[in-house]
Amino acid sequence: MPAESPFQTQRDAAAERRGPVTAATIIIIIIIIIIMAPAGAKKGILERLDAGEVVIGDGGFVFALEKRGYVKAGPWTPEAAAEHPEAVRQLHREFLRAGSNVMQTFTFYASDDKLENRGHTQTFTGQQINEAACDLAREVADEGDALVAGGVSQTPSYLSCKSQDDVKATFKKQLDVFVKKNVDFLIAEYFEHVEEAEWAVQVLKTTGKPVAATLCIGPEGDLNGVSPGDCAARLVKAGAQIVGVNCHFDPDTSVKTVKMMKEGVEKAGLKAHYMCQPLAYHTPDCNCQGFIDLPEFPFSLEPRILTRWDMQKYARDAYDAGIRYIGGCCGFEPYHVRALAEELAPERGFLPAGSDKHGNWGSGLEMHTKPWVRARARRDYWEKLKPASGRPLCPSMSMPDSWGVTKGHADLMQQKEATSQEQLKALFDKANKGQ
Amino acid sequence: MPAESPFQTQRDAAAERRGPVTAATIIIIIIIIIIMAPAGAKKGILERLDAGEVVIGDGGFVFALEKRGYVKAGPWTPEAAAEHPEAVRQLHREFLRAGSNVMQTFTFYASDDKLENRGHTQTFTGQQINEAACDLAREVADEGDALVAGGVSQTPSYLSCKSQDDVKATFKKQLDVFVKKNVDFLIAEYFEHVEEAEWAVQVLKTTGKPVAATLCIGPEGDLNGVSPGDCAARLVKAGAQIVGVNCHFDPDTSVKTVKMMKEGVEKAGLKAHYMCQPLAYHTPDCNCQGFIDLPEFPFSLEPRILTRWDMQKYARDAYDAGIRYIGGCCGFEPYHVRALAEELAPERGFLPAGSDKHGNWGSGLEMHTKPWVRARARRDYWEKLKPASGRPLCPSMSMPDSWGVTKGHADLMQQKEATSQEQLKALFDKANKGQ
Amino acid sequence: MPAESPFQTQRDAAAERRGPVTAATIIIIIIIIIIMAPAGAKKGILERLDAGEVVIGDGGFVFALEKRGYVKAGPWTPEAAAEHPEAVRQLHREFLRAGSNVMQTFTFYASDDKLENRGHTQTFTGQQINEAACDLAREVADEGDALVAGGVSQTPSYLSCKSQDDVKATFKKQLDVFVKKNVDFLIAEYFEHVEEAEWAVQVLKTTGKPVAATLCIGPEGDLNGVSPGDCAARLVKAGAQIVGVNCHFDPDTSVKTVKMMKEGVEKAGLKAHYMCQPLAYHTPDCNCQGFIDLPEFPFSLEPRILTRWDMQKYARDAYDAGIRYIGGCCGFEPYHVRALAEELAPERGFLPAGSDKHGNWGSGLEMHTKPWVRARARRDYWEKLKPASGRPLCPSMSMPDSWGVTKGHADLMQQKEATSQEQLKALFDKANKGQ
Amino acid sequence: MPAESPFQTQRDAAAERRGPVTAATIIIIIIIIIIMAPAGAKKGILERLDAGEVVIGDGGFVFALEKRGYVKAGPWTPEAAAEHPEAVRQLHREFLRAGSNVMQTFTFYASDDKLENRGHTQTFTGQQINEAACDLAREVADEGDALVAGGVSQTPSYLSCKSQDDVKATFKKQLDVFVKKNVDFLIAEYFEHVEEAEWAVQVLKTTGKPVAATLCIGPEGDLNGVSPGDCAARLVKAGAQIVGVNCHFDPDTSVKTVKMMKEGVEKAGLKAHYMCQPLAYHTPDCNCQGFIDLPEFPFSLEPRILTRWDMQKYARDAYDAGIRYIGGCCGFEPYHVRALAEELAPERGFLPAGSDKHGNWGSGLEMHTKPWVRARARRDYWEKLKPASGRPLCPSMSMPDSWGVTKGHADLMQQKEATSQEQLKALFDKANKGQ
Repeated sequence: MPAESPFQTQRDAAAERRGPVTAATIIIIIIIIIIMAPAGAKKGILERLDAGEVVIGDGGFVFALEKRGYVKAGPWTPEAAAEHPEAVRQLHREFLRAGSNVMQTFTFYASDDKLENRGHTQTFTGQQINEAACDLAREVADEGDALVAGGVSQTPSYLSCKSQDDVKATFKKQLDVFVKKNVDFLIAEYFEHVEEAEWAVQVLKTTGKPVAATLCIGPEGDLNGVSPGDCAARLVKAGAQIVGVNCHFDPDTSVKTVKMMKEGVEKAGLKAHYMCQPLAYHTPDCNCQGFIDLPEFPFSLEPRILTRWDMQKYARDAYDAGIRYIGGCCGFEPYHVRALAEELAPERGFLPAGSDKHGNWGSGLEMHTKPWVRARARRDYWEKLKPASGRPLCPSMSMPDSWGVTKGHADLMQQKEATSQEQLKALFDKANKGQ
Repeated sequence: MPAESPFQTQRDAAAERRGPVTAATIIIIIIIIIIMAPAGAKKGILERLDAGEVVIGDGGFVFALEKRGYVKAGPWTPEAAAEHPEAVRQLHREFLRAGSNVMQTFTFYASDDKLENRGHTQTFTGQQINEAACDLAREVADEGDALVAGGVSQTPSYLSCKSQDDVKATFKKQLDVFVKKNVDFLIAEYFEHVEEAEWAVQVLKTTGKPVAATLCIGPEGDLNGVSPGDCAARLVKAGAQIVGVNCHFDPDTSVKTVKMMKEGVEKAGLKAHYMCQPLAYHTPDCNCQGFIDLPEFPFSLEPRILTRWDMQKYARDAYDAGIRYIGGCCGFEPYHVRALAEELAPERGFLPAGSDKHGNWGSGLEMHTKPWVRARARRDYWEKLKPASGRPLCPSMSMPDSWGVTKGHADLMQQKEATSQEQLKALFDKANKGQ
Repeated sequence: MPAESPFQTQRDAAAERRGPVTAATIIIIIIIIIIMAPAGAKKGILERLDAGEVVIGDGGFVFALEKRGYVKAGPWTPEAAAEHPEAVRQLHREFLRAGSNVMQTFTFYASDDKLENRGHTQTFTGQQINEAACDLAREVADEGDALVAGGVSQTPSYLSCKSQDDVKATFKKQLDVFVKKNVDFLIAEYFEHVEEAEWAVQVLKTTGKPVAATLCIGPEGDLNGVSPGDCAARLVKAGAQIVGVNCHFDPDTSVKTVKMMKEGVEKAGLKAHYMCQPLAYHTPDCNCQGFIDLPEFPFSLEPRILTRWDMQKYARDAYDAGIRYIGGCCGFEPYHVRALAEELAPERGFLPAGSDKHGNWGSGLEMHTKPWVRARARRDYWEKLKPASGRPLCPSMSMPDSWGVTKGHADLMQQKEATSQEQLKALFDKANKGQ
Repeated sequence: MPAESPFQTQRDAAAERRGPVTAATIIIIIIIIIIMAPAGAKKGILERLDAGEVVIGDGGFVFALEKRGYVKAGPWTPEAAAEHPEAVRQLHREFLRAGSNVMQTFTFYASDDKLENRGHTQTFTGQQINEAACDLAREVADEGDALVAGGVSQTPSYLSCKSQDDVKATFKKQLDVFVKKNVDFLIAEYFEHVEEAEWAVQVLKTTGKPVAATLCIGPEGDLNGVSPGDCAARLVKAGAQIVGVNCHFDPDTSVKTVKMMKEGVEKAGLKAHYMCQPLAYHTPDCNCQGFIDLPEFPFSLEPRILTRWDMQKYARDAYDAGIRYIGGCCGFEPYHVRALAEELAPERGFLPAGSDKHGNWGSGLEMHTKPWVRARARRDYWEKLKPASGRPLCPSMSMPDSWGVTKGHADLMQQKEATSQEQLKALFDKANKGQ
């Protein structure tokens, strides 16, 4: 074994036999386990976290499915759950194989106010999309050791200054589907303002199911400048049992932010579990708005994509910071999640099914035809490598846009009709002036 | 329409109506067209190319499926066709939606000598894998206007100095499946030595089906130093009707190489169609071995991934160079193929189904919530942007490994048993010394 | 006039006539002014600053003379003042021509304890070096409108934990020369610990001459973690009339630090003038030790050198921050100082003599032979340009060494004998382990 | 001795004693040698080269003196020789101390047609400037073991299509001064067209003095596309005993070009000595016009400046390529020349005077106060280091301007009056369109 890992040195005898085990065998074993397990035997999310287990999340669906041709960048809505269920099911399966313990329903931006935005019309109703998403998540979750999490996210209504009642009613409509479909727990995610996240948590708490809440913020705090520590304490007080961040920032920044949250919660004398689902993009140059403000968002982010080795570092950093719910968001592909599961295999005691098609730290390269590629089948090669961009005309960092507008600004108001040419021209002019 | 394209200015009245057409409608239209078409009514590959039509290829399967968890980097073998048909089918479908006119059977490295390599054993036989791959390609090709191409590629037998007869027998075994499954045409691809490619073409020609042949070479020629022009002329003489390159180099380098091939063919008084299926990675720093020699291969290539805008430039460059079969190889995701189809929409007269989830030059961003992102819904924004890597500690170029060993070298010999620890240690030492 | 500057738009009628004025004319005018001025008629440093005038400092001598072959990197001692007076005189003259109002005596590290360090012996005594440096500074200062400043800097004695009396005695020896040579004012510069700087100020104050004090610190404060604001307040209380930073950080970081100092002084209800003499190297990646910790220090800093346009931005930023004593340190060449003087020409009312060989914002290029270079004779060209490194194998940022040792650590102790091979080997091993 | 060099391992016992020798001692020895030598005892340039000795050239004066405030970028004329002789003398001295065996007269662009260009008038006549330059070079050459070389360079007359007689008359005027001042040999340098260089060589040959000729070309050849090999053969046939390149390209490119010249000369059955005086800027991105076409020329080239270690590599590469006259051009500072002399100390048998202020491969750092800097006092540290730019918003390569105009184009015509605003505006427009 050329590529050493904590797992390989610590794992028990049973795992030692893995070498000759094929993917097929692993799947058969998994199926047997599932068949033998009594219905409802899966441990709940809080049971796992209370027991100190690592929970591997999944990756973001809108970016992954945009690249596959099923989601439109701009509206970012999840109608594919109803329109192209085979594509959504396949992505769920890939994350499951990669080691995910949670199948999030593909219900991001599936609130009615968001589905009909700026000229984007839908063939399916919001309810149909939410229901289809629940069914797909449950179907695949049942193929392995995964739970279903129903998710709500920030609403255009809030940005447009609708009342607390209106915003809460929006969450309630999605929640009704989650209750009907009996998801295992709930996530309020991708909130830029802690106030809106509190409202979401308050609504989700009415079900009695466990509630997780993540903000899309960095060390500077939410868009009103509330610090990560204060945000986290407020979310715990609102009823969230798991708090953390998702999206908008890279793993380094996100782990740092969750650490600040943990300090805030502990300083307030509260308790919580911690969760991190960052981008799979390097964003050292972001301001408080995260990658939305980077000039490369959303169509030229490729050079920033994390490697699997970057992901192993993230998994270890998150674990060391006391975070136990470790997943991903935009940019994550199944192999990124697999890297999290491989890094934390010593702690979890097993490798995911998908690792049969990998091998720790590149050990699969032992079978490569070219000898100089076989010479890369080792951990220290990949850990030390500083990958080149192949783009000598490009810089390493960008200056983010910094329009600095937030809730209440005219340009952020929800409108049903498409953006007009006049509206666009005004925006183009404003952007060009800023250069 | 903020984002101008040749298509939008040149397209005919029928296309003009596309605006409000949804993906669903397009699929219905496609289904109607398919139903109405008599069996076998699809135009063959040579009919299309002779008529001057653009043929959009698909992308590489091994890299895409490695990221999804179904292919092992190192052996790079296609057993997933039999093991996980749903994953392979889904990828075919995504390429079809993106605009591909060709479904290549997922039979890369599916020769028997390659399937059993360096300790990598298979649950399925070579015949089972090849058959499953043909069935999947045909199933999805029948869902749209695509042809099925059976593909063979370089063999370990050739590198191990087996006889011409032995090597040809290896190709023949795969070919028997292709004939039985009645693929529409054949591709001999990914050859580093023109001699082996000639042998492959000679075998494939025996079927009477059209034959395409691509080498994985750059402007320096094949690994024996035969120039691209001479390579191409030899392949045409061997019977290939379509010649070009695939894999190993980025689009810029590959288009340049095919231009050299075209000059060679014309200088020899011959005629052919031209084909280009490059990497989706920027490789300005490669030597003659292509991206295999880059230190980032295969696990840290992320910063080199082309954007969709890079792809539009590639499609235009290839078209302008007289290349009409334009596709991709390793690194291509469905959205990369869609970009080719969008760039060449004026020439083809239509957009692919997947463009319903995109919009030319980022016009889908008109529906984004944040006004400064709506300000990016225009061509000149994306064309001018020089995307940052987000990696300030990394360089922009690498020094390739340059072991310079090829056919006949001891380190390249095929062996069934796994690479031993002693063998690995020798390779690691050699690699470290080279640094 | 293609290249616009605030100076050109704001300058008065007299300056408007500058166009056809040659360098010779300017020099003649300067000579006339000098001849007409009564002896001792020059305004003192505090008179100038109290009147709100901009004072342009000079650049660092040790780095400039190291490149010219007269200073040894490592010891960094100023024996060239006695050994090669023509080289030191010439550099003074170049800074004077570039617009400097201050000639600092080349007495950096000219304390006796530093001159005899780790095997570095001297042909001249400390007193001889200090006296020669004073004579040279005075000679050139008298050729223009410049003052002579005698400078002391941090001592090995302090790092080696000598007593306050011992350290003060060290400063006193240099000061005796400054008094004898009647310098115009005094500078305590390049202190890493505010405590040692306070001691220096207390000694310098005994002369009754104006005293400036600069620390080589960034926003994180001195090496004991005392904040810039607190450092500055302590220096003012110790008697310094001018406070600020020099060396160790780039202009962006240094201006930011002086702003923090200003806030600290004002918060303490004190008053002072502010001074900034940063590096001419970009150092966004520094930690609290500044560029000493960068792996490129001191022999591979070239890619970080600021352009003249970067310097104009620095001069403007410093001015806008309320800093009026604006100069430079290591890395500054005469053209860098000239850029400061050109940027602040509107405020000062005149251009330096050296600008006769330049022209604002590249306007001298109007005379270039090649038309595309004449096309660069304009401000917006140079302001927008992002200069390439020409080093595709190099990164844009470095990880600083962070040994984190300071005053009192065994490795920092002064020793007269040369570093032994054993001592060196221990250091090399320690450094390699850290990689 | 931590930093090993070929010199240190190969040098003889006498050199071994160098350790404790101070700069002063070396200078005294040099003075003794000079005093003892009979007048005219210095070996001529051809004697040295015929004997296989290494001749170290000097660096470029226009760029070095531009930074010091005595030359105007744009006209790049050498009036400082008459206007500010102390500055020119000092630079000569620094190159001498650094190890230069040649003092080139500062007569670049000192032809009468160039001195009065586009509104740039002179206080001194061409003859005065040329004479002053000869006197300064001789004065300093006499202080050490250096020869005086009189230099002519390309003329505006040639670009403006003046007759061969006119162009030759221009060279003749400078040559008359060189003969009167009895320089040791002649250099025709910085020619972009081999034809003009041939004319220059023919004129210089009339004196009977040795003639060197260098073109400012790269591997693509002169601006008419004449290959380096053909250029060199033509120059040798015209009478040059030493041929090579200077300016316009970095050391890597220049050594490569001189190798091509050597092959051309040898292929033509001729014999010559070879010479290389490249830029001190990295220019991997240049086209045939060299660094003039880079967008950073001439005011933002800083990030491209070579380190002393880059220079040692250049000296070794040039030596290994059979080049024996090894010097520099624009961008070279004295420490760059010293690096050449240090690298070739084993071949030359001695270190230059200036090395007393350096120490091989950074060994002077043994005396640094900070232990982690002392840990850098070794060759492998500096050889492996990839220096960062400190500029994360900048790329590593540029797209050169490529106006592609040469001799005869209207925009290149000489004109005495200043470039008018209309002319400038036309150029700015043309440049902006090209972006």
